[in-house]
Amino acid sequence: MAESDRYLQSRAWFERAEAVIPGGVYGHQSPAMLTRGSYPFFITEAEGCRLRDPDGNEYIDFLCSYGPIVLGHRHPEVERAASAQRALTNAGNLPSTNIVELAERLTSMTPGADWAMFAKNGSDVCSWALAVARQATGRQTVAMVDGTYHGVHGWCNGVQRGFPDSDRASVAGFAWNDLAGLDGIFDRHDGDVAAVIVTPFRHEAFADQVMPASDFLGGVRERCTRHGAVMIVDDVRAGFRLHLGGSTQCWGVEPDVLCYSKALANGYALAAMLGRDELREAAGQVFVTGTFFTEAVPIAAALATLEVLEREDAPAELERIGRRFCDGLASAATGRGLAVTLSGPPSIPFMSFDADEGSFRRSRRFAGVAAESGVFLHPVHNWFVALAHDDATVDRALEICDGALAVVADEFGRG
Amino acid sequence: MAESDRYLQSRAWFERAEAVIPGGVYGHQSPAMLTRGSYPFFITEAEGCRLRDPDGNEYIDFLCSYGPIVLGHRHPEVERAASAQRALTNAGNLPSTNIVELAERLTSMTPGADWAMFAKNGSDVCSWALAVARQATGRQTVAMVDGTYHGVHGWCNGVQRGFPDSDRASVAGFAWNDLAGLDGIFDRHDGDVAAVIVTPFRHEAFADQVMPASDFLGGVRERCTRHGAVMIVDDVRAGFRLHLGGSTQCWGVEPDVLCYSKALANGYALAAMLGRDELREAAGQVFVTGTFFTEAVPIAAALATLEVLEREDAPAELERIGRRFCDGLASAATGRGLAVTLSGPPSIPFMSFDADEGSFRRSRRFAGVAAESGVFLHPVHNWFVALAHDDATVDRALEICDGALAVVADEFGRG
Repeated sequence: MAESDRYLQSRAWFERAEAVIPGGVYGHQSPAMLTRGSYPFFITEAEGCRLRDPDGNEYIDFLCSYGPIVLGHRHPEVERAASAQRALTNAGNLPSTNIVELAERLTSMTPGADWAMFAKNGSDVCSWALAVARQATGRQTVAMVDGTYHGVHGWCNGVQRGFPDSDRASVAGFAWNDLAGLDGIFDRHDGDVAAVIVTPFRHEAFADQVMPASDFLGGVRERCTRHGAVMIVDDVRAGFRLHLGGSTQCWGVEPDVLCYSKALANGYALAAMLGRDELREAAGQVFVTGTFFTEAVPIAAALATLEVLEREDAPAELERIGRRFCDGLASAATGRGLAVTLSGPPSIPFMSFDADEGSFRRSRRFAGVAAESGVFLHPVHNWFVALAHDDATVDRALEICDGALAVVADEFGRG
Repeated sequence: MAESDRYLQSRAWFERAEAVIPGGVYGHQSPAMLTRGSYPFFITEAEGCRLRDPDGNEYIDFLCSYGPIVLGHRHPEVERAASAQRALTNAGNLPSTNIVELAERLTSMTPGADWAMFAKNGSDVCSWALAVARQATGRQTVAMVDGTYHGVHGWCNGVQRGFPDSDRASVAGFAWNDLAGLDGIFDRHDGDVAAVIVTPFRHEAFADQVMPASDFLGGVRERCTRHGAVMIVDDVRAGFRLHLGGSTQCWGVEPDVLCYSKALANGYALAAMLGRDELREAAGQVFVTGTFFTEAVPIAAALATLEVLEREDAPAELERIGRRFCDGLASAATGRGLAVTLSGPPSIPFMSFDADEGSFRRSRRFAGVAAESGVFLHPVHNWFVALAHDDATVDRALEICDGALAVVADEFGRG
């Protein structure tokens, strides 16, 4: 179908949007992230692993709202729990009691976590974790892996426009998997490193994902312990897909502070910071709060989400589904004579074209054709699998992806 | 009723909370903010202007969730709109189309606002506004009124524990209503003042509220225009109670950027930043985003909330209700021989006891007795009125408050 017909309503809405919203659609949802012309600008309905746009086009969804949808859109058990809570109270003068149940559940699920606190954004809890570490240690320097996305606050905003350099004054960068680089930070800032913050694997947009070297996360853990620094794991993006006790459990590593958001409440806005007893006093001393931090509806949704994740042994099932999808993609690419790289864990996969050499030109075309054909992937950002992806749907998506690969091979040539 | 009986369930939940949440209840909802022993620790049900705690005690609510509840808890029109949207989609790969409708509605309601962007917390949009101002002007210094609450990010966190001094490196403080002090900042940072951020009136906790001097907001406006700085109004707390076009319209002042949150969606987590055309490009260049920033359910709730606010001429009605409450309190205090100060606009009132001289001892006792008797006020933070406060309920609350004033007069003496 011609682009002009397929996205008629979507474009009409986007033109209205451009008049009243800078860029029309902003942030990570900006059209610049996708393949312009091949994607809708809005999504108006979602159920399970299927989406619908304003023109009525349907998609099998492998972006899962950039992570939160781990069960499936509008999962009935989650929606029931949210509805029941909405009939009582949401944001109040005081929290509702289900915040206690969620803190109990998360701490009991998570080795090494003795307490939990809640907020709205991943940015909230990653920044809050630094404050707790600084308060606990009386130190200032925070070590982070260069270029890692920990949110949009000044200390970590990758684009930096509008944020003063002083916001990054106490941040020291090292390279992913580079323990010697981290040692250098501990040397240069001897006695002043409050925290090291890492993601369980490297999952930045505009790059292949990179798993941790076998000694990396354990090496960070050992150095933090040795130097009295707080190890913070930013599990905002990966959390609950790899391991229900925190993603670094896959590598046998327990952080001191664990930051969750995205998948915690299957699409309701919630973030959590979990920590060790040793940091409890500091966590109580740091003043971070928000009117909606303890909203009871997202908390009810989280309790229901965790129930399903545990019952369904979600990490194993998500890995199985993701592997089926990745294996199918790899095989289809080989069949079309295209060299691709599948990176990241199967449940949070990404595929790039080797011949693109980082340009993502083939990726943009591939994802664009897939979108036009009914599979919502992302050209430059990792994808996500949900429990709603049954085998038949994955196989149907693979057929569509094979067609998109054929277009890439046809237009760019094999290789 | 003895405290031990009244809050039995609440205390049992709080003991569980203390084991898994630092402080049990944290942030602005911390028990330390209230009168320990006289308040519940949790609220489990809310409807209209009435609350219920885990022990089944009921309250007439004058805190309104610290602001968001401007219509009443679980307002039927808002809940219907939220339910209808929940049946479609909430957080997605792309926004839903109702974000366009909300941006259109807000910009059409708000003199001088040409665009809108959305987030989750008041902190998000106040910090985002600074970034837009810095990006637009290429300058770094931001002027704020000393001690004003603009959220919890490092540049403005009043408690500061855990945040490095460098977070405040580009912030210059001046006193409320002190235009000469602001002139001093423009002098000292000549050509480098990116923005001045102010609230429409001063509403910090632990103090009487202070209205702007007649020339203050206009004076800030004039200086920003003259020096090429961006005037940001933090209307997070006051927004939609004083004027539906932005609170500073009451003083004839149009800011360049207007920050909303709390009451925008009557209890659903949403924040908005509105701005002028001149700042549109900068707003599009600054990268601030969050997985849940464009959630469609809170946006649907906001559209319904604005509909009711406009239809009911909310600011006038809220002022009328608030005035009835404030006049009644003043009269009751006089009747009990107590000197009190009512401060702030009637729809966002606060009362302190002159003899307390800032200690809030009488305030804590007064609010505590009121809570034990079924009225939820706050001893040290301003209160809020909602459209759900009908005259009969206000009068019933005043009866209870009169009883609490009698206890204060009895225990502390007249004066």
